[in-house]
Amino acid sequence: MKLLRIGASGQERPAALDGEGRLRDLSAHVADISGEALSEEGLQRLAALDLRSLPEIDPGQRIGACVGGVGKFICIGLNYIDHAHETGKQAPPEPIVFMKATSAVCGPNDPIEMPQGSEKLDWEVELGVVIGRRAKYVAEHQALAHVAGYCVVNDVSERGFQSERGGQWTKGKSHDSFGPIGPWLVTRDEIADVQDLDLWLEVDGRRMQSGTTANMIFSVAHLVSYLSRFMTLEPGDIIATGTPAGVGMGRSPQLFLKPGNALSLGIDGLGRQSTSVVAAAQQT
Amino acid sequence: MKLLRIGASGQERPAALDGEGRLRDLSAHVADISGEALSEEGLQRLAALDLRSLPEIDPGQRIGACVGGVGKFICIGLNYIDHAHETGKQAPPEPIVFMKATSAVCGPNDPIEMPQGSEKLDWEVELGVVIGRRAKYVAEHQALAHVAGYCVVNDVSERGFQSERGGQWTKGKSHDSFGPIGPWLVTRDEIADVQDLDLWLEVDGRRMQSGTTANMIFSVAHLVSYLSRFMTLEPGDIIATGTPAGVGMGRSPQLFLKPGNALSLGIDGLGRQSTSVVAAAQQT
Repeated sequence: MKLLRIGASGQERPAALDGEGRLRDLSAHVADISGEALSEEGLQRLAALDLRSLPEIDPGQRIGACVGGVGKFICIGLNYIDHAHETGKQAPPEPIVFMKATSAVCGPNDPIEMPQGSEKLDWEVELGVVIGRRAKYVAEHQALAHVAGYCVVNDVSERGFQSERGGQWTKGKSHDSFGPIGPWLVTRDEIADVQDLDLWLEVDGRRMQSGTTANMIFSVAHLVSYLSRFMTLEPGDIIATGTPAGVGMGRSPQLFLKPGNALSLGIDGLGRQSTSVVAAAQQT
Repeated sequence: MKLLRIGASGQERPAALDGEGRLRDLSAHVADISGEALSEEGLQRLAALDLRSLPEIDPGQRIGACVGGVGKFICIGLNYIDHAHETGKQAPPEPIVFMKATSAVCGPNDPIEMPQGSEKLDWEVELGVVIGRRAKYVAEHQALAHVAGYCVVNDVSERGFQSERGGQWTKGKSHDSFGPIGPWLVTRDEIADVQDLDLWLEVDGRRMQSGTTANMIFSVAHLVSYLSRFMTLEPGDIIATGTPAGVGMGRSPQLFLKPGNALSLGIDGLGRQSTSVVAAAQQT
């Protein structure tokens, strides 16, 4: 299944894409694409529906974040060797873990806000892993059973805030709009091999990132197992699994985003995001 | 007001402490101590109640985390100069920001789990700030108007996971039970000067930390304003504002927690936590 959330921010309705690419309204069957709806039982209930019998939704509406009520937005740093090298670092001996504020979550095509004082706004296309079942001290061979599905994530980053403002990376990862997820949550059964997906990103039509999840240093199963030793993963948590080479910081000369830039990014089978950069409002 | 949540984990009922120290049930008036209930209007509605007319709650029940549905658990590092020095660091030029997993939130007297593989389990008594109103690009002189109230936080930390396992601090800050908050959320109006509160912590009856919020490097108002430039603060978010000297890592020789150790900690006017350390279960 390809699950998504349609409507104005904060008022999204759960939906699914049918075999003909039409949007079908799930709101009579599930309150939201979140929490317990992401469990194996919850997803099976949705899979049993005849989508063509459900009301169609006007495709002209906004697409929201593909998961509602995200509890934790966990990110993995330097998980592709080519990206580690372009930032001047070695492959890490174990996963680097940091958090993005959940208030940064937004829809796949929502504008990306350039924060006040930002000079180094950057992009990172990443495979997102959506947790479906609680995971605490889970072995690697059992880890994927805790995954509901996958989605496209742009781990938008402000490099100055991240690395030149003292200490930890969170500061450069958390502004509103720094976490577009979607368009779809694609359930695990539809992805034959999560370690064999191409991912790409373009700025103003120019290809910046071309990678494959085959080049991850730590696999999705390893990451879920590893994280579950440090924190309990819960349904609706999202793990952004790291980005391949080609970020603006790693280019020579460096290249950063400005208002007006257009971004497109996508992953095999998980859809694409199309967005543009705007200046953050003075106060809201 | 002193607001709290009473009952088994996940089933807490909202309550308030009345003038005689009795627990009064608020569940007919508010669904939870969370989100919009923490707004100025929400708190005014509760303040207008005659607490003595509300049903009493048996004081023998578990006290839960004083805030439900915490969206972000934001922590400030090295915000007391004596603590910075005991860890071998200088005062930071601007606040150090990191995140704790929200799944670490627990009640003030719940056992603290020693994670598998942990050898450096440590304590940090901290002033917790609970956000009541959305804050984005808020000036320092307006920042406290976005605060619903204050509580005791123990920023439980595993120093090996935090600093010796690659990269960012989140890994050592996020295990289940690493975020006891409460017993009470004390509303802002009851605290005459948030920068003049004593805070203390004892292990097995031995005083380990004695500090005052007067010694913070960055004030609460500064922190709220500062954070609001990097991420939007939302009702129910918690900011743990840093710890004074006296953590186990800073002692000579170093001293870390083991199962069986008893902890007590508190802050002037915000109540106290009493808990003990247990080993984390193999798998749950």
